[in-house]
Amino acid sequence: MSNDDASDLGVALPAAAAALSAEERAGLVNELKNKLQNLAGQHADVLETLSPNVRKRVEVLREIQSEHDELEKKFFEERAALEAKYQKLYEPLYTKRYEIVNGIVKVEGETNEAVMDEEGDKCVEEKGVPDFWQTAMKMNEILAEEISERDEGALKYLKDIKWSRNDDPKGFKLEFFFDSNPYFKNTVLTKTYHMVDDENEPILEKAIGTKIEWYPGKCLTQKVLKKKPKKGSKNAKPITKTENCESFFNFFNPPQIPEDDDIDDELAEELQDRMEHDYNIGSAIRDKLIPHAVSWFTGEAVQGNEYDGLESDYDSDDQDGDEDEDGDEEDEREERKGKKKRKCKCRPKSAC
Amino acid sequence: MSNDDASDLGVALPAAAAALSAEERAGLVNELKNKLQNLAGQHADVLETLSPNVRKRVEVLREIQSEHDELEKKFFEERAALEAKYQKLYEPLYTKRYEIVNGIVKVEGETNEAVMDEEGDKCVEEKGVPDFWQTAMKMNEILAEEISERDEGALKYLKDIKWSRNDDPKGFKLEFFFDSNPYFKNTVLTKTYHMVDDENEPILEKAIGTKIEWYPGKCLTQKVLKKKPKKGSKNAKPITKTENCESFFNFFNPPQIPEDDDIDDELAEELQDRMEHDYNIGSAIRDKLIPHAVSWFTGEAVQGNEYDGLESDYDSDDQDGDEDEDGDEEDEREERKGKKKRKCKCRPKSAC
Repeated sequence: MSNDDASDLGVALPAAAAALSAEERAGLVNELKNKLQNLAGQHADVLETLSPNVRKRVEVLREIQSEHDELEKKFFEERAALEAKYQKLYEPLYTKRYEIVNGIVKVEGETNEAVMDEEGDKCVEEKGVPDFWQTAMKMNEILAEEISERDEGALKYLKDIKWSRNDDPKGFKLEFFFDSNPYFKNTVLTKTYHMVDDENEPILEKAIGTKIEWYPGKCLTQKVLKKKPKKGSKNAKPITKTENCESFFNFFNPPQIPEDDDIDDELAEELQDRMEHDYNIGSAIRDKLIPHAVSWFTGEAVQGNEYDGLESDYDSDDQDGDEDEDGDEEDEREERKGKKKRKCKCRPKSAC
Repeated sequence: MSNDDASDLGVALPAAAAALSAEERAGLVNELKNKLQNLAGQHADVLETLSPNVRKRVEVLREIQSEHDELEKKFFEERAALEAKYQKLYEPLYTKRYEIVNGIVKVEGETNEAVMDEEGDKCVEEKGVPDFWQTAMKMNEILAEEISERDEGALKYLKDIKWSRNDDPKGFKLEFFFDSNPYFKNTVLTKTYHMVDDENEPILEKAIGTKIEWYPGKCLTQKVLKKKPKKGSKNAKPITKTENCESFFNFFNPPQIPEDDDIDDELAEELQDRMEHDYNIGSAIRDKLIPHAVSWFTGEAVQGNEYDGLESDYDSDDQDGDEDEDGDEEDEREERKGKKKRKCKCRPKSAC
């Protein structure tokens, strides 16, 4: 293996590397390059240096490994079928949720009571559960980070989020359904992740998002900065400059691996981080938000949540950080604190 | 929620945080503390500010969510049963592997041919596949990093590695079976991971390893440094100092969360990194090494491997980094390079 072959190793670092500083990582990349080259060399050696008897044993071991791998393949198939079966069972529940959230069906006991609108100047009948998806998303740590204040106006129009598995190429698709709105023309925004299999481990190949057709002046992923022209300049028009800005809608314009993948280590690292971040958002939407949207909306799903939702025993009036608490409360708090544990970043393999 | 309640947030950072520098992370920890406090406050608000009609709708949505969660629980149970079924099917194959690797059974076509021993001074009959597990482990990036040169003598005696799931407390156990050896008294070293469920996501609670009973002077996780005493000092004996050192066997002495979990952010970060690293090693052994040990031994399982194992079309003599290659070879190499893709750190959820 020549040095050249390992030049894109920067995008294939082991999990542990993510916890290191940029400098440590640059060192690690080089170390790994050397190591992989050694491993490849070693591999050839291992088999060549075996005595005839040991080589025969290894041949039989390889047959046993093949038998195992055949079984394992069936296991993956059965597991995928099981997952598909349950996705079908969830479907009607998601439909009911959609209908209630968007006011398509009424629930028992609803009155025709109207409420004051936000400006407090007229009475309106509230439809469904206003801001359902936006509220649910903001309750999730990972997703809350992505939503800017400017996004809130557009996310009001989010009616539903669905996901489905793709088989060829492997991966999954997220669909965001929007009501017609003053921000963009699209009614569905999609995000697709293409994965490839490597030793039964899914590897992200690329992510693709819908191109958003913003209405003029409504783009949320860019800011227009206006500068007054210098006094006495010939052109009296203000100078406008467009700048990219933070927005959840950047999710639909994911980082891309450049055609020429001979990028340097630092850029490769940065790209890996950005792709990983993007993948984490997609996974959070698929694995957490969509299946448990109501629990996110009510806050019951919040990690390390001290409130047990509507059935909570803790009076919310008592949660204002009162320093004058008695001993019992102190104990209770300590006990609750103990529940916050280190999160191991496990994601379902089958779901990639 | 008082400030105090969020003080151990440092050990529950989101996945994306792992990619940041220490300084950025310290900032993020504070930001998250504030955010979580806001979220908790928001949660109470969300439900309190709902109009009676919307609240009724949310109550119905919560019932739908419960129905979903019941189904999901069944899904997790069925998936666990499926996994257990296949583990049973793999078992006889692992036993056969064990018997061949350790020379308990002979394979067809074996001769009584003896080979020169390492020193080349006498003929010995090779038993099984010498250094099978050690060689396999060294082929895996994550595990290779853990093995020091000093470890090699002891790892020669590793006969088998098994894993099993624990139900109460949830988690899994790795067992390392050793032949009697000059390094330590134990014949089985175990490593157990205790997990807790949080919103169906496994969280590592703690890891426990066997205390290794080293024979005198044989401990591989410590080095004894001898210093000559200063000339003219009263005590003529050399001063000995014991120092911890790198060794795979540190895996059996995993990082622990201190009883007093009010540690500062920086220490919490470091602890999180070390626990995560330890968990990654355990997962690699369970998910990669044990099921595919033969493919690791032969090198076929090496990530981004350019050799297709024994059936490889590439002549290993041609892999010496020859710069004078012709165009076709260049193309072939480019094609192979393209296969190295970013690894997304997906681990099977069911396997935690």
